Amino acid sequence: MCTGLSFTTHDHYFGRNLDLEFSYHETVTVTPRRFPFDFRMQPSSKEHYAMIGMATVADGYPLYYDASNEAGLSMAGLNFPDNADYKPVDPERTNIAPFEFIPWILGSCASVEEAERALESVNLADIPFSEEYPQSPLHWIIADRERSLTVESVREGLKVYQNPYGVLTNNPTFDIQSFSLNDYMHLSPRQPRNSFAESLSFDAYSRGMGAIGLPGDLSSKSRFVRAVFTKMNSVCGESESESLSQFFQILGSVAQQRGCVLVEDDDKYEITIYSSCCNTDRGIYYYRTYENSQLSAVDMHREDLDSDALVTYPLVTGQQINFQN
Amino acid sequence: MCTGLSFTTHDHYFGRNLDLEFSYHETVTVTPRRFPFDFRMQPSSKEHYAMIGMATVADGYPLYYDASNEAGLSMAGLNFPDNADYKPVDPERTNIAPFEFIPWILGSCASVEEAERALESVNLADIPFSEEYPQSPLHWIIADRERSLTVESVREGLKVYQNPYGVLTNNPTFDIQSFSLNDYMHLSPRQPRNSFAESLSFDAYSRGMGAIGLPGDLSSKSRFVRAVFTKMNSVCGESESESLSQFFQILGSVAQQRGCVLVEDDDKYEITIYSSCCNTDRGIYYYRTYENSQLSAVDMHREDLDSDALVTYPLVTGQQINFQN
Amino acid sequence: MCTGLSFTTHDHYFGRNLDLEFSYHETVTVTPRRFPFDFRMQPSSKEHYAMIGMATVADGYPLYYDASNEAGLSMAGLNFPDNADYKPVDPERTNIAPFEFIPWILGSCASVEEAERALESVNLADIPFSEEYPQSPLHWIIADRERSLTVESVREGLKVYQNPYGVLTNNPTFDIQSFSLNDYMHLSPRQPRNSFAESLSFDAYSRGMGAIGLPGDLSSKSRFVRAVFTKMNSVCGESESESLSQFFQILGSVAQQRGCVLVEDDDKYEITIYSSCCNTDRGIYYYRTYENSQLSAVDMHREDLDSDALVTYPLVTGQQINFQN
Amino acid sequence: MCTGLSFTTHDHYFGRNLDLEFSYHETVTVTPRRFPFDFRMQPSSKEHYAMIGMATVADGYPLYYDASNEAGLSMAGLNFPDNADYKPVDPERTNIAPFEFIPWILGSCASVEEAERALESVNLADIPFSEEYPQSPLHWIIADRERSLTVESVREGLKVYQNPYGVLTNNPTFDIQSFSLNDYMHLSPRQPRNSFAESLSFDAYSRGMGAIGLPGDLSSKSRFVRAVFTKMNSVCGESESESLSQFFQILGSVAQQRGCVLVEDDDKYEITIYSSCCNTDRGIYYYRTYENSQLSAVDMHREDLDSDALVTYPLVTGQQINFQN
Repeated sequence: MCTGLSFTTHDHYFGRNLDLEFSYHETVTVTPRRFPFDFRMQPSSKEHYAMIGMATVADGYPLYYDASNEAGLSMAGLNFPDNADYKPVDPERTNIAPFEFIPWILGSCASVEEAERALESVNLADIPFSEEYPQSPLHWIIADRERSLTVESVREGLKVYQNPYGVLTNNPTFDIQSFSLNDYMHLSPRQPRNSFAESLSFDAYSRGMGAIGLPGDLSSKSRFVRAVFTKMNSVCGESESESLSQFFQILGSVAQQRGCVLVEDDDKYEITIYSSCCNTDRGIYYYRTYENSQLSAVDMHREDLDSDALVTYPLVTGQQINFQN
Repeated sequence: MCTGLSFTTHDHYFGRNLDLEFSYHETVTVTPRRFPFDFRMQPSSKEHYAMIGMATVADGYPLYYDASNEAGLSMAGLNFPDNADYKPVDPERTNIAPFEFIPWILGSCASVEEAERALESVNLADIPFSEEYPQSPLHWIIADRERSLTVESVREGLKVYQNPYGVLTNNPTFDIQSFSLNDYMHLSPRQPRNSFAESLSFDAYSRGMGAIGLPGDLSSKSRFVRAVFTKMNSVCGESESESLSQFFQILGSVAQQRGCVLVEDDDKYEITIYSSCCNTDRGIYYYRTYENSQLSAVDMHREDLDSDALVTYPLVTGQQINFQN
Repeated sequence: MCTGLSFTTHDHYFGRNLDLEFSYHETVTVTPRRFPFDFRMQPSSKEHYAMIGMATVADGYPLYYDASNEAGLSMAGLNFPDNADYKPVDPERTNIAPFEFIPWILGSCASVEEAERALESVNLADIPFSEEYPQSPLHWIIADRERSLTVESVREGLKVYQNPYGVLTNNPTFDIQSFSLNDYMHLSPRQPRNSFAESLSFDAYSRGMGAIGLPGDLSSKSRFVRAVFTKMNSVCGESESESLSQFFQILGSVAQQRGCVLVEDDDKYEITIYSSCCNTDRGIYYYRTYENSQLSAVDMHREDLDSDALVTYPLVTGQQINFQN
Repeated sequence: MCTGLSFTTHDHYFGRNLDLEFSYHETVTVTPRRFPFDFRMQPSSKEHYAMIGMATVADGYPLYYDASNEAGLSMAGLNFPDNADYKPVDPERTNIAPFEFIPWILGSCASVEEAERALESVNLADIPFSEEYPQSPLHWIIADRERSLTVESVREGLKVYQNPYGVLTNNPTFDIQSFSLNDYMHLSPRQPRNSFAESLSFDAYSRGMGAIGLPGDLSSKSRFVRAVFTKMNSVCGESESESLSQFFQILGSVAQQRGCVLVEDDDKYEITIYSSCCNTDRGIYYYRTYENSQLSAVDMHREDLDSDALVTYPLVTGQQINFQN
């Protein structure tokens, strides 16, 4: 399904794997400050923070999968089937359609703290974008360089969780995902010590045995545990090159290879369509695709951010090979 | 530690992850047909198959980690600590030093079948390359487009195993590795069915749950199981671009991220220094490094293969980014 | 910690393992119909269903751990640390002290359905029995021959869950316990079939491999999964002897052996102090203890059930051996 | 299948679970010193150590499953399908039929050391007992109060392993079983400590979490790991009652409940037919059966051990209940 990640070295990086069995013609999309957001149940936003991210542009509207704004706040929507429960419009609350959620937050908030306050009144209203683009069941990760939140609209209402991992996958709900980590607290990047029986001797026959028990399948709970372990134990230099590489290495630990996850109804396979990483301090959005492992990049500050027109870059999806001879 | 992989679509591909906490200044090295191999205990080889692969060149000698020859045969040496047991020189047998093993096989054999016959008389003799390059404990995977072998020199003698997986990692010995797969025979890329209790209902709450139980740590047995599962279930088109991408995706499923495997004596971390993939039909050697995710390539047929001089290409290790704006 | 079990063959059986590092001088205790229950916040009960079960009798009051009444309803309290949250007295609701909960339900309800209705108004009030017997953090299983409930008073309030397993252990909360079963839906008493890779052959080298993945430790979530698997797949005749044996075999699959669970504060070990099984149709309470594997039994119908005085039987704890020569 | 166990407190105890889907009319059988053993390929033994154990007596011959002799040496045969490989008669060696192996060792050896010497010349010859009782594929555990051995006749020949665990189950071969313990060296009866990530806090929500990862299914490798863990961490007093109870508790941790292991060819279920424990210092053989949890016992020293006639006691298999009222 998907994995979202927030990671801070010298700069702050935010991105995700998009795992699906098909592609929606997504593009790297820059929304400048004066692109008009006409919210369905809220006043229009004529001027707002500029943002960059991955989006399908439909009828001139950027349906963002993940994005970062010029103030350093980021947000991604991840699949949340059977659990996402959007509500009827509630006149007492700030009604936001799920497809508007990323633009609304990133347009107006500069930090997780501001987003947290904005969320206090939010009702995620069951308003689809169009007949062609029906409602997607989603939950969200919102992050700046210091903190992350998880936002879930479930049967009981809107839940806003502190996310100390900077990682989000999919089902089950975030409270159960977090609780499940307790069963892995003994994992370690160090070699195991014998606590089984003093009188026996054991053979640590391979490096890496301290993490035996870490799940390796691609279901969302297993990816969550694995991504949290990899991220929390990550060791990385401060440079852009080191940071980017480490970020994509972490995402690689939960990438989906074609053939491992069969979607039976369609006889298709879920794969990691793209992996992205935005340097939120510099406004540069990097990505790679399943078939093209080279990083491509779009720098939002090379666009006219005071414009009112979207700028889109189609993905470079073919393998780009550097022949040395 | 390491993972070796053989994979066939339209063409045959062979490569590996090299997982270590340091680098030996390895280069992509082409050995043309007339480069003289002066074997320690065997007649010199004045003319042989040309080969390409990753090597440290020491005193003018290519110490190959992995290589493929122009006839389509490939071979890689992987770490095999505590198990590798090289023998005294045995005058009754064909004595080959471990560092000569790859050149000797690839220089003279065009297929696994030929290698199998050559191995019948081999004794891996405990002859180090030099004081500076002491003996490495290794075992090997030898592959062509049809089949793979595993070769292990252990206390009991030289063992040659059929390797129906086209995958090799490290410890324990290959017979135990293979046996351990039995415990995972129920894993599947399909969703699980309820066989727990007819009267209960269950929720397949995420895609990918059919492989729950697949180990996710980086120890060599866990990487073996994971790589075999990913490779055997791999679905891939026939083109060069699709095949390369899939090959590196499979290797990615067992890559080592910095921080996850601490080498305590040195306070260093094992990482996937490079991942390689040779199209053995075309003689093109592709690789990427921990920090540079773009594929670089060297084509052996663009060199003078009738020469007697090694050709080496240093690795491109910095992140190569394709800016779209 | 503990495991509760409800099991129906020809008759209905209800019981539990009590797992602790110490014993409270518990006795098999019959409460006849006219024993007066003076509830703290409810009218006294002068006449009620008779019941039999395991209790510590303190100041003449039966503090039941588990019990069954003459109408066939049963209930057991199991340890629920950190999660149990008893509430202030609420004048709008039926306030029951936790130590009164078993007598109050079993005194007045003949079935799970009646208990369910009674629970609608219940508030588990934070009223301890005495200074000497402080509040225990508990949750409960209530069962008749057809159905089981789990009752938990947690921070959010009183939760009443349908329990289709007839099994209860301890933490985490029942909703998370139930959800965790999804990860085991592929387990089976049948041998596994190869779904890993068609082209490979595997060896089902031992019977019982269809349940590989079933957790074997003694933590409460692992015991829950194991007890549910064992119970749901249980095959048993209809006789009293077969049923009793099977019941104790199921409880045996989650018994705690001295040495496996260290309670570090006390340097003591949790063990299965007793295992019980009440035939709720006949009113016979069977039990065995850690050291005495023979079943002992008390038949409530051999007591004067119209009396107002408790009858207690101390446990037979020494090993009772039947010498054949 | 089966589990064998050797355990020493003040006295030494030896026994096993017999796990099968049928029973062979086994009896507790005392073989006195002058019962004549007419070995097929060895001289008859007219006088030998007396022994007691579980046997099917066929044509007047005790086919022992497990037994202990009056000198304190014990031995049990356990199922070893597909691996056991008995050999043609070898005139250079001491040829023993598998069915003679227990009488031959226990008749003449007083200790593991003596057995070890005797084994040096043994060839387990492929000589069946009779047409009615064909060859069983077995391997053996031999134990005294100090040490245990595992004996396996496999394709490569007769293997005698030191067994520092005092535990034997079934497949795979003992070297692989022993090696597999390395993957569990981190298990502990203590609570886990957080080594996952310093900056995160975890909740050890249940006692017993230090052994998370211990396998809970009934396949032979999983039973081996579980029995070794339970035995090596066992805490037990010195008395007969405590020792017996602990021994049967350890065996209980790997007992097979009816329904959990389906034998598909027969549509039958493997269960723990009996569990035995011989106090080898006193010569008392205790057992219980699937349906009778009370211990029954036979004391060899109450028989005439200088006799030449077998003494057999049928098993007490019905539940023996001690009614307290």
